[in-house]
Amino acid sequence: MANKHVFSYGAGKAEAKGADLTKNVLGGKGIGLMEMTSIGIPVPAGFTITIQTCEEYYQLGRKLPKTLEKEVRDAIVKLEKVTHKKLGDDKDPLLVSVRSGAARSMPGMLETILNLGLNDKSVEGLAAKTNNPRFAYDAYRRFIQMYSSTAMGLSKQPMEDMLHEMKHKIGVATDPEIPADKLKELCAQFKAFYKQNKGEEFPQDPWKQLWGAIMAVFNSWEAEKAVTYRRVEKITDLKGTAVNVVQMVFGNKGENSGTGVCFTRDPNTGENTFYGDYLINAQGEDVVAGIRTPLKLATLKDQMPKAYDQLCAVRAILESYYKEMQDLEFTVEDERLYMLQCRTGKRSPAAAFRIAVDHATQPLLTKAQANELIKKGYLPKKYADAALKPVITKEEAVSRLSSEDIERLFYPVIDSKKTGIDQLKKLRLAGGINAVPGAAAGKVVFTAGEAEAFAHNGDRVILVRKETSPEDVGGMHAAKGILTATGGKTSHAAVVARGWGKCCIVGCEALDINYNDKVMTIGGQTIKQGDYLTLDGSAGDIYMGDLTLKEPELPESYYTILKWADTFRTIKVRTNADTPYDADNAVRMGAEGIGLCRTEHMFFDTEERRLAIQEMIVAETPETRKAALLKLLPFQRDDFYGIFKAMNGFPVTIRLIDPPLHEFTPKDEAGIGKLSKITGLSPEKIRHRCEQLHESNPMLGHRGCRLCITYPEILEMQITAIIEAAIKCKKEGIKVFPEIMHPLTMDKKEFKILETQTRAVADALIKASGVKLNYMVGTMIEIPRAALLADQIAEVAEFFSFGTNDLTQMTLGLSRDDAGRFLPVYVATEKEGGKGIFKDDPFQSLDQEGVGKLVKLGIELGRSTRKDLKIGICGEHGGESASVKFCHRIGMNYVSCSPYRVPIARLAAAQQAISDKKVVIKKKTTKKK
Amino acid sequence: MANKHVFSYGAGKAEAKGADLTKNVLGGKGIGLMEMTSIGIPVPAGFTITIQTCEEYYQLGRKLPKTLEKEVRDAIVKLEKVTHKKLGDDKDPLLVSVRSGAARSMPGMLETILNLGLNDKSVEGLAAKTNNPRFAYDAYRRFIQMYSSTAMGLSKQPMEDMLHEMKHKIGVATDPEIPADKLKELCAQFKAFYKQNKGEEFPQDPWKQLWGAIMAVFNSWEAEKAVTYRRVEKITDLKGTAVNVVQMVFGNKGENSGTGVCFTRDPNTGENTFYGDYLINAQGEDVVAGIRTPLKLATLKDQMPKAYDQLCAVRAILESYYKEMQDLEFTVEDERLYMLQCRTGKRSPAAAFRIAVDHATQPLLTKAQANELIKKGYLPKKYADAALKPVITKEEAVSRLSSEDIERLFYPVIDSKKTGIDQLKKLRLAGGINAVPGAAAGKVVFTAGEAEAFAHNGDRVILVRKETSPEDVGGMHAAKGILTATGGKTSHAAVVARGWGKCCIVGCEALDINYNDKVMTIGGQTIKQGDYLTLDGSAGDIYMGDLTLKEPELPESYYTILKWADTFRTIKVRTNADTPYDADNAVRMGAEGIGLCRTEHMFFDTEERRLAIQEMIVAETPETRKAALLKLLPFQRDDFYGIFKAMNGFPVTIRLIDPPLHEFTPKDEAGIGKLSKITGLSPEKIRHRCEQLHESNPMLGHRGCRLCITYPEILEMQITAIIEAAIKCKKEGIKVFPEIMHPLTMDKKEFKILETQTRAVADALIKASGVKLNYMVGTMIEIPRAALLADQIAEVAEFFSFGTNDLTQMTLGLSRDDAGRFLPVYVATEKEGGKGIFKDDPFQSLDQEGVGKLVKLGIELGRSTRKDLKIGICGEHGGESASVKFCHRIGMNYVSCSPYRVPIARLAAAQQAISDKKVVIKKKTTKKK
Repeated sequence: MANKHVFSYGAGKAEAKGADLTKNVLGGKGIGLMEMTSIGIPVPAGFTITIQTCEEYYQLGRKLPKTLEKEVRDAIVKLEKVTHKKLGDDKDPLLVSVRSGAARSMPGMLETILNLGLNDKSVEGLAAKTNNPRFAYDAYRRFIQMYSSTAMGLSKQPMEDMLHEMKHKIGVATDPEIPADKLKELCAQFKAFYKQNKGEEFPQDPWKQLWGAIMAVFNSWEAEKAVTYRRVEKITDLKGTAVNVVQMVFGNKGENSGTGVCFTRDPNTGENTFYGDYLINAQGEDVVAGIRTPLKLATLKDQMPKAYDQLCAVRAILESYYKEMQDLEFTVEDERLYMLQCRTGKRSPAAAFRIAVDHATQPLLTKAQANELIKKGYLPKKYADAALKPVITKEEAVSRLSSEDIERLFYPVIDSKKTGIDQLKKLRLAGGINAVPGAAAGKVVFTAGEAEAFAHNGDRVILVRKETSPEDVGGMHAAKGILTATGGKTSHAAVVARGWGKCCIVGCEALDINYNDKVMTIGGQTIKQGDYLTLDGSAGDIYMGDLTLKEPELPESYYTILKWADTFRTIKVRTNADTPYDADNAVRMGAEGIGLCRTEHMFFDTEERRLAIQEMIVAETPETRKAALLKLLPFQRDDFYGIFKAMNGFPVTIRLIDPPLHEFTPKDEAGIGKLSKITGLSPEKIRHRCEQLHESNPMLGHRGCRLCITYPEILEMQITAIIEAAIKCKKEGIKVFPEIMHPLTMDKKEFKILETQTRAVADALIKASGVKLNYMVGTMIEIPRAALLADQIAEVAEFFSFGTNDLTQMTLGLSRDDAGRFLPVYVATEKEGGKGIFKDDPFQSLDQEGVGKLVKLGIELGRSTRKDLKIGICGEHGGESASVKFCHRIGMNYVSCSPYRVPIARLAAAQQAISDKKVVIKKKTTKKK
Repeated sequence: MANKHVFSYGAGKAEAKGADLTKNVLGGKGIGLMEMTSIGIPVPAGFTITIQTCEEYYQLGRKLPKTLEKEVRDAIVKLEKVTHKKLGDDKDPLLVSVRSGAARSMPGMLETILNLGLNDKSVEGLAAKTNNPRFAYDAYRRFIQMYSSTAMGLSKQPMEDMLHEMKHKIGVATDPEIPADKLKELCAQFKAFYKQNKGEEFPQDPWKQLWGAIMAVFNSWEAEKAVTYRRVEKITDLKGTAVNVVQMVFGNKGENSGTGVCFTRDPNTGENTFYGDYLINAQGEDVVAGIRTPLKLATLKDQMPKAYDQLCAVRAILESYYKEMQDLEFTVEDERLYMLQCRTGKRSPAAAFRIAVDHATQPLLTKAQANELIKKGYLPKKYADAALKPVITKEEAVSRLSSEDIERLFYPVIDSKKTGIDQLKKLRLAGGINAVPGAAAGKVVFTAGEAEAFAHNGDRVILVRKETSPEDVGGMHAAKGILTATGGKTSHAAVVARGWGKCCIVGCEALDINYNDKVMTIGGQTIKQGDYLTLDGSAGDIYMGDLTLKEPELPESYYTILKWADTFRTIKVRTNADTPYDADNAVRMGAEGIGLCRTEHMFFDTEERRLAIQEMIVAETPETRKAALLKLLPFQRDDFYGIFKAMNGFPVTIRLIDPPLHEFTPKDEAGIGKLSKITGLSPEKIRHRCEQLHESNPMLGHRGCRLCITYPEILEMQITAIIEAAIKCKKEGIKVFPEIMHPLTMDKKEFKILETQTRAVADALIKASGVKLNYMVGTMIEIPRAALLADQIAEVAEFFSFGTNDLTQMTLGLSRDDAGRFLPVYVATEKEGGKGIFKDDPFQSLDQEGVGKLVKLGIELGRSTRKDLKIGICGEHGGESASVKFCHRIGMNYVSCSPYRVPIARLAAAQQAISDKKVVIKKKTTKKK
């Protein structure tokens, strides 16, 4: 490849332009540094080695591309020019940080090395030049530590132990208290340890250091923890990491220096305030690691007012520029501000909604704030103007949110009514920092491995750690909630958990963990592994026991976003609901009808109903079968009445009985005995009949409309129940619109027989009642043949509902119940030990290529016969974002999903409509030209 | 409908022309009579009421169309003019027969009424006019009998009993011996019985009689036996029956009269001789019913030389005209010949081949025969010329035969070597008339109902009856062989059984049946229901016991036809074969390669193999799995070597392991014990592992290539076995061309992984061996998704083989194992108690509309990527005629089927190629115009 591998920046200019200026080339960190440089924000100079270089590195079998050396040497020369320092110079050495930076943020996953360029000579030069030997040797000992572990693979612990040992020996508590000579001593110890373990001297040549660091960053891309993180976060499309080599600036130069991380808005609530932590006299890693408890950003105003004002201006500039909440890293060196990183900030789901709404409706700064920053000369007029207006449109606000944001909004809270306020007080053990809101209850475990093991067995778990590290990501994901003894809101635990919207409390000082005995003490209580604990992540409170949780109250901004979404959306969103309760709930979630009402669930409800359906199954003549069905009729009629009432005029699609009859048979001797008593049939006969119903492949067996083809009495009863319920509603002035749906249709003639019988029963009842009642008769399309012959079936069917659960099973020849043995291998990537055949589990996200092709064909064929054919989907895919968008694109009229997925479908449908509109506008624009 | 319902004919002219002159309008009998009339053959005058009238009759709810009355009255007027007689005339009445006649022959299924027009007065006129009162009253009593039962639904038996009673009373043995006065007495008894049962006089008005008879014929169309017959014969597309009203001619007028049925060639052997039976002084039904034993046709030459010569001329004319062997009915009235029916004659399969070959290569008459008939003035020159040349082309000969003809050819014969000639002699019980060749052995039953019940339980049965009647058709079909005590080669039993190619012996006079006790005596032996009997239908011999049968020797003409077929055929025919034995057999059947070699069958062969595969299944590590597979390797290699050798250069498609592993697990404790001993694993562990393998829907589970995706060791072993066997062949100079096939592919990436591994293993072995070996890697297309994405899969696959068994299951969502509970309802017509949703069982004949659409799409997509993609089918449809033709039409390169279906596929493929050529020629001709 003759591509450019290295892009430099500094002194207000960046090399990367156009297509190179993208995250997939330079990574998030690299592009942030270059963009900030370009728009005049103070950033230390540096250069970025591209993500493509990382790809090449792996393609070459972990070897650097040949042309890279010259490009890096050139970039160092440029950097030396801008900084007026030289790499390896004994008097005034150029020091750099070497950091990873992928296209998407992977906090703590990839490697970083600071202070590179120091060696035994230049450290003395640095000490002399800064007149600060303590600072110089602190920088050197950090470099040796990081380089040894990160680039050379040595264990971190021994050097950490030496550091502790030293503090103990000289009787100090914190690192900054260690004097220069002791730090120098430590450096010597570290280097000795290095030599002992690596068999050679610690590298003194800054070039050797630099190449080692670059390769360390590339290698960290394929480290197990990073691979796991990408799988869990579903970001498996990334190609590699960039390497950012940046001039060092020092927050640890003394009391006029410091370093911090901050968010341009509160990432928990979304409130429009500047939010963050900093430490005086510290390097960046100290803040993130959560070792020292940091200070609130507001106090910076008093400690370093100039730097603070500058930072406020940077905040305004970056939000105006990126039109998004930013997550920033900064360092103040001798009161001078340097921005080290900017990226779109992770946020709680509530904050995501609030920020989107605010961005679309509110200015970032008040006029007074803007004027002050302008006056001080930190905020250019151009950015001030932008900060006084909403930065995005409502469409952009709706498009920005994800289905995960909605899911996370619905995470539960503690039901204080249930537990009682007094009792809650008694159960409260301690408080911590409320890092991620939401509540969680579960069994306590103390290691990530145990968290995964417990969760695998179906247990809810709370992971309790002193602090978390990237190695713990798997267990953190498996846990319902996370509790740590140390760290702040920007600690590893907080940042990772926030990304998932997972309840998290950090910095709980009252917590003492004994990993060996698998116990913790907190608030005077001893809690063992497996005991229950409840966390309230919103308040930061920790409770004993397994408290009842309840649905949270949704923020106003959630309703605003979904209201906007509904105005953009062009397809309807219905729900799958089988009971008046579900129906009611779904309407509250925004459902515009029922797309799938499964009638068989109604048969399981009470013993009376179960016995009646069993009686029907063992009936030996059509007459006894009809008699049994007659018992079920009033139950079904009442259920339908309730559902119609709840939906009050919204269409209700009712699917006739679908599962094979053996699902209803008595499963034990007691059940058989009861059925025998009722029917007068011998238990042997009943057992025999139940055995007869056994099927080799029930999925493909005697079920769906095949039941009504062989037992038309069932159809008759169900239609009677539906129509009588509808008539009752009509008479009471309730609007009702039943859509009667036959499942598992495979042939036009088959469907015609059912349709004819359906209409005969329905029309007779309607005629006799004297009311006017409209209804539709349609079919599921869930068998490949039905999709292939949809033109024929549409001659009879008034609507189609694609049952993509079954359609996926049949189109892929894949039993959902059995796929567990091999489907994970198909979905997992090679790196994860799988084969990477499918990008997603086809039962979770619609296989658009295969099943989708059949669905598309079915729609085209169906509409070729019947232009106004109403088409929807009622598989579980109807509530999955990508699938909903696909349904919109292929022209469905609606999607239907479980009540709690309705908001997700509403949002996804709106996003696709917005995206379509953009395409239309673009096309129009192109045409005009 | 303003359509013409009635078509008259007589005196050398027929009304029907053009489109009306087809079997679907006039029925087989009607069209035969009209065509014979038109070409100058002596036929009594008459008219035919169309099949469309029958359809209208049912559409009107069993009512005759309004315009029919006038049309029938007009036709009677015409008939009266031609015959110079008047319906209902007291002195010289016009008498007619009223017979059914559908588009296809349904022997004995539909109703017939003779001598209609007689009443108490005209019978006297007829007596006077013919000067033969016995004849007149015999005709009248027959008419009363037939009309009462057929048109008026009275039971036949009482009148039969009265007839017997009369014979007994007056001491005569046969009907012709009853004198006139006694017949008159019988008529009176019959009429009294009629009045008693119907509450009114026997109808004297000939018009009332006529309408009654016409409706009786129409009603017979929907009688149960006719519906059953059509289902069994798979002729469910017929719309109804025509009614033939024909002037009566009388074979029962005395010793100068007679009646007979004959075939223009021997229907058993196909030999070019005139073949038939006749009776002197009898009416047609007497011959067919088999009540009197008829005379051989040859003796007619002496008895009525003139009529015989005329008949010989008719034979020549009709075969020349129809270019087919004809089944004729004739009556001689006072030495004058009348033809009453001609139709394509049913024949044994051997005869079908012989006749087709003869028709395409031999003249019908010798010159001498022709000259004699010309000289006598019976044979016009034009027909004589035609009779001296072959009447059809080879293409027509090939197209004429059906897959059933081939199937029937393979019906077995008694293995005399096995039983021994002496023993055979001892076991022989008696002889009968060898009505249909082939042998059968099974349990004796005496009723059609028992035949069906026994067969349903899996028993082979021999149906033994005094005589059979149309009511017995169901049981006859269920039986392996049929034996009757009475009747000749044209009796009901013989004709029906011949149509099916089912072994049948009739007229076994030694046979005495006691229906009540369910026993028969024959050759001094008493045989009970359930005892075994063996029939040799070719020789007419009946044996005690369950003799071993063997494959028959095939007639020379069979080889001739298939040789011709191969010259016309454009697609290849391969076989499904898993063993060298099958492969060998298939080559003899004409297979041009193996299209499906199932490797898993090889694992079941011996205990050693079974244990090795079980060891593989319970293996806990890849290492032990590999070790177990290593045991299987030599077995598979030897098997492949044998198969390659047998196929000597023909391509062999080997499918890697397909079934789910639980099919191989030990099924009992003994098996578990053995496996435990070998593996050292505890029985509990083995049992647990076997249970783990249980699947809810194994059809859609962990099978096919999914096994090799999860256990690549299996693939490695199988590829090694294939390639090592091929290398061994190559080294021995045996030509070999393996095609390695992966089953159940659903995705390109999935297949690419398997293809890559396959080639890696194969290429390494080939390289190491130093021989040059070509092989291909392809896939089954048996999952809908694979067909939908065939363009992608064809990027990797060198060939496709459509597995239409599984593809049908998945496309229709229909488990073959479970469909028994409802599929019959889908296939059976409404009249048969079903719903008539499918025309054929989709597992027997490919669902061309649904599955076929997917297959067609798969081919188009596949070839869009890879033009030369080799495509075949290896489902069971590959040996079914209609499916093979479909495969040809959609562009497959070959079909593959079980060895014994290979000839059927060869024939069907040739027929489609011939049909295509016709279309091409037609198109060319049209273009020239």
